[in-house]
Amino acid sequence: MMQTYFSPQQAAHAPLRELNNGEWVDFAETPARLDSVLRALGDTLVARDFGMDPILAVHDPDYIAFLQSAHDEWIAQGRSGDAIGYAFPVRARRPLNHKRIDARIGQYGFDAASPIAAGTWEAAYWGAQSALSAFETMASGDARRAFALCRPPGHHCGRDYFGGYCYLNNAAIVARQAALRGLGPVAILDVDYHHGNGTQDIFYEDKDVLFVSIHADPVEDYPYFWGHADETGTGDGAGKTVNLPLPRGTVWAGYQAALAQALETVRAHDTRFLIVSYGADTFAEDPISHFKLTTSDMREIGTAIGALDLPTLTVMEGGYKIEALGDNVAAFLAGLNKVACTGRPD
Amino acid sequence: MMQTYFSPQQAAHAPLRELNNGEWVDFAETPARLDSVLRALGDTLVARDFGMDPILAVHDPDYIAFLQSAHDEWIAQGRSGDAIGYAFPVRARRPLNHKRIDARIGQYGFDAASPIAAGTWEAAYWGAQSALSAFETMASGDARRAFALCRPPGHHCGRDYFGGYCYLNNAAIVARQAALRGLGPVAILDVDYHHGNGTQDIFYEDKDVLFVSIHADPVEDYPYFWGHADETGTGDGAGKTVNLPLPRGTVWAGYQAALAQALETVRAHDTRFLIVSYGADTFAEDPISHFKLTTSDMREIGTAIGALDLPTLTVMEGGYKIEALGDNVAAFLAGLNKVACTGRPD
Repeated sequence: MMQTYFSPQQAAHAPLRELNNGEWVDFAETPARLDSVLRALGDTLVARDFGMDPILAVHDPDYIAFLQSAHDEWIAQGRSGDAIGYAFPVRARRPLNHKRIDARIGQYGFDAASPIAAGTWEAAYWGAQSALSAFETMASGDARRAFALCRPPGHHCGRDYFGGYCYLNNAAIVARQAALRGLGPVAILDVDYHHGNGTQDIFYEDKDVLFVSIHADPVEDYPYFWGHADETGTGDGAGKTVNLPLPRGTVWAGYQAALAQALETVRAHDTRFLIVSYGADTFAEDPISHFKLTTSDMREIGTAIGALDLPTLTVMEGGYKIEALGDNVAAFLAGLNKVACTGRPD
Repeated sequence: MMQTYFSPQQAAHAPLRELNNGEWVDFAETPARLDSVLRALGDTLVARDFGMDPILAVHDPDYIAFLQSAHDEWIAQGRSGDAIGYAFPVRARRPLNHKRIDARIGQYGFDAASPIAAGTWEAAYWGAQSALSAFETMASGDARRAFALCRPPGHHCGRDYFGGYCYLNNAAIVARQAALRGLGPVAILDVDYHHGNGTQDIFYEDKDVLFVSIHADPVEDYPYFWGHADETGTGDGAGKTVNLPLPRGTVWAGYQAALAQALETVRAHDTRFLIVSYGADTFAEDPISHFKLTTSDMREIGTAIGALDLPTLTVMEGGYKIEALGDNVAAFLAGLNKVACTGRPD
């Protein structure tokens, strides 16, 4: 099995409730997700600590300072439980020196579904270190492929905002490192059910990092305000964002066609380092998603990506059918690893 | 007592819960607020129906269509109870053709504290008609001052968004009518505890309608992202937005100084028609606010505004200490009405 990186601290993030579909419900992105994957994958390598620099190469320092202190501020201001925002700057968003934690959460957030719990920073930090550990084993030449069991996930999180259960953008952090270390051109292929809006925003003006995403059409699925097909990058990054939204109910045939297009885009970018944001929430039984892929289809996705024969770092994103999560991840990785990677095809 | 306009349909808006300060709590802006004011003021005049045109002179047609159908869409998509949003477009907000009601609520909202209930449109519509009825009695020359017991309130609601318990901007609707009917220059003086961000946005580029607001400093109070002193209008409206934020704990002396400055700004605009967004949540015992004004201070605010000797239309905004709400409104109106209005001072 592929080298898998993980840190037990990632279980420290355990919010209780979120606002979703008009109801105050149990938080869906639970530590039990980790257990399901760990059971299926067996042995994992413990993440090493690469410190703050690679995180700050993607995220704004003020955002990171907020994330580190937010729950303490919440408690210091007399609140209990998880910190959660309720008002958001939909117009004229700009830096402001707020005193109140609710304002600060709104300043750095975009939904009421992503609470900050006592252990959120610790878990997010170690999730990023898991991704960086996977990256280093590849950068040092020890492996051509690796898997980072990141949790909480990362792809909804932008340079200066959190949301969608995501607090640090693990895929972006390793993509930036790959570019900085001269391993590019870099491509990020996002196959989570939901659009990776944070990743898109981070590289929206960047010509060196391609972002390609296959996801549920945001006219009917989260994150709604990002991921439409007409979002294609801007400035130097024009054409380097590719969104392939698919309708609810998509089965393998439809998914496969979009995947072929995505892989062709990755090839055309002359990609030398590929990062896959893998979500298992495309699975038919996922409780909050609406594609109809099977565990066998997960293997097919992995196989098709593996056939690119590129150095490939996979980071975990979503997937909420916990009983099946480990099997789906294992199937994807088995497909990806079916043929040994020889490096770059040419 | 001053002519007061009201419609019983305004009680139809009765959401159950809101997300506030990290908790899923009882909705604070209840129909009981109306009862408290009605008891204190005695007889009221029933609002007449001026139709949609004056509403559409302020709000975008697509926003109004959304507001009219949102709760029906919610139910049609299998939900129950009140419609409430949880994800908001903090970046690159733009028109999108969403199918899912959660996306549409996010597109037109900015908080998770303002549910849309079955009766929300009816109540908001008739609140606006109450304001228009008060306006018409003044425009026709029957009264120099009038009071519209609007509820739900309006000042957090913008051209194309709702929030802060507000769905139609009553003050803006009558301000626009006053300007269109040649009764200006028009000024809106907002003395609610919270900044009137919706009103500000609607007239931010407008040179003919002055917006002056005295409110809790948004570094620590809602709506957080608007109402800072450096927001002064733009384009033709440069200098025609004046924000006077005050710290928590403000007592009469501090308030009076800001009020004097606000009234001087109204005078300097050569105002001929004044609209007051009156909130009683500056009251010391208000459960969600933090100024320290007394009922007697409410009378002083009214007296100071009345001394401008301008045609003055007061619309109700916030105020959540229900037992005292009627007395505070009555005290304000009594102060305002202490000296008969003779028209324009010169």
